[in-house]
Amino acid sequence: MGAMRIAVLGTGMVGKHLAAAFARRDHEVRIGTRDPEETMARGGHGPEDPPFAAWAAEHPEVGLEPFARAAAFGEVVVNATSGSVSLDVLRLAGDDNLAGKVLVDVSNALDFSQGFPPTMFVKDTDSLGEQIQRAHPRARVVKTLNTLTAHLMVNPQVLGEESTVFMSGDDAAAKATVRGLLEDFGHTDVIDLGDISTARGAEMMMPVWLRLMQALGTSSFNFKIVR
Amino acid sequence: MGAMRIAVLGTGMVGKHLAAAFARRDHEVRIGTRDPEETMARGGHGPEDPPFAAWAAEHPEVGLEPFARAAAFGEVVVNATSGSVSLDVLRLAGDDNLAGKVLVDVSNALDFSQGFPPTMFVKDTDSLGEQIQRAHPRARVVKTLNTLTAHLMVNPQVLGEESTVFMSGDDAAAKATVRGLLEDFGHTDVIDLGDISTARGAEMMMPVWLRLMQALGTSSFNFKIVR
Repeated sequence: MGAMRIAVLGTGMVGKHLAAAFARRDHEVRIGTRDPEETMARGGHGPEDPPFAAWAAEHPEVGLEPFARAAAFGEVVVNATSGSVSLDVLRLAGDDNLAGKVLVDVSNALDFSQGFPPTMFVKDTDSLGEQIQRAHPRARVVKTLNTLTAHLMVNPQVLGEESTVFMSGDDAAAKATVRGLLEDFGHTDVIDLGDISTARGAEMMMPVWLRLMQALGTSSFNFKIVR
Repeated sequence: MGAMRIAVLGTGMVGKHLAAAFARRDHEVRIGTRDPEETMARGGHGPEDPPFAAWAAEHPEVGLEPFARAAAFGEVVVNATSGSVSLDVLRLAGDDNLAGKVLVDVSNALDFSQGFPPTMFVKDTDSLGEQIQRAHPRARVVKTLNTLTAHLMVNPQVLGEESTVFMSGDDAAAKATVRGLLEDFGHTDVIDLGDISTARGAEMMMPVWLRLMQALGTSSFNFKIVR
């Protein structure tokens, strides 16, 4: 795809993997966070999750800005925050800054407050993707990439075998843009499930994903639809 | 596996496919139904779902009995009824007739009363598999095969590529028996998710399964866990 301006909201593993992968493909990338100074001062959580400042030093081409400025910058805005705060973060990003934009939602509706396994705080008759679309009707929400771990989102080839990602959304042009971005990451089997209500299905794959992670002893796996 | 006595509860597509496949492998098979006379008199629903009597005539080795007699006969009892009636059917089958048995639950908790897409009448914090185990604590419940269509349950090779089935249950020996039956059907990747509570994950795959069926225009697909 041609170079685009992409805002990635969220500074966790998912946000960092996506931002780095977009930047490697010559997109202009800014990460959105609540308070950039606080984010740069934050400590790490071990070798797998170093301080954000260390990651930022290795990715000087990726800017760090408050949510609203990042969202205003992006032609494509990616919600890579924890599902439990996504609606709050998008409110801070600003509805006007999301209007007309492709809003890629990769979040999951997991509630870890009662420990493992987490429960889902929205499911079955609604989804986080739909909640985000209703909260921001002018945004063109595409749910995708919520069914695999961060490093596989941007590098599925490491599995050594084709696997599948899903896409849900009401706007065909937005889905075409997202398909292009996914294909650039190496995804060769992108299934368009349908409108944004189909995000319910993709979001409800999390419980089995979590149990598979335990049973297999790794998060490095993905679903493939064999047909 | 050595020949076993297997009761299949349910006369729908799933029950018929499983019963025929078990019989082909020289197990002694009886199908359980509410009222055998009514079942034999029942009309069909078109070429894909002929009258039960027509199927029975082609499978004279498979007996048809009331739920309780079939369950009493089986060393392995398979719940192949609609999830909405499964607990009722198992009550009719008789708790004593299920005691100590391997109870294979392939049902799904789908509520079609409001049309498509169906909602789930149990999910997330509970599962049909767990409800069945709680209702029949002496049975050794194994949840499996609820994530693929009937003909693929017993003949996964037709996909031309390995795919995955899941298994959940509290009893290791029961799971070993079920694994053997699944391998006899040609399943080469059987993932043991863990105890019966992990059935929540497998059951919650139904919403995406249904949307995939619509998106792909076929039910002839299966999940594969690529790792």
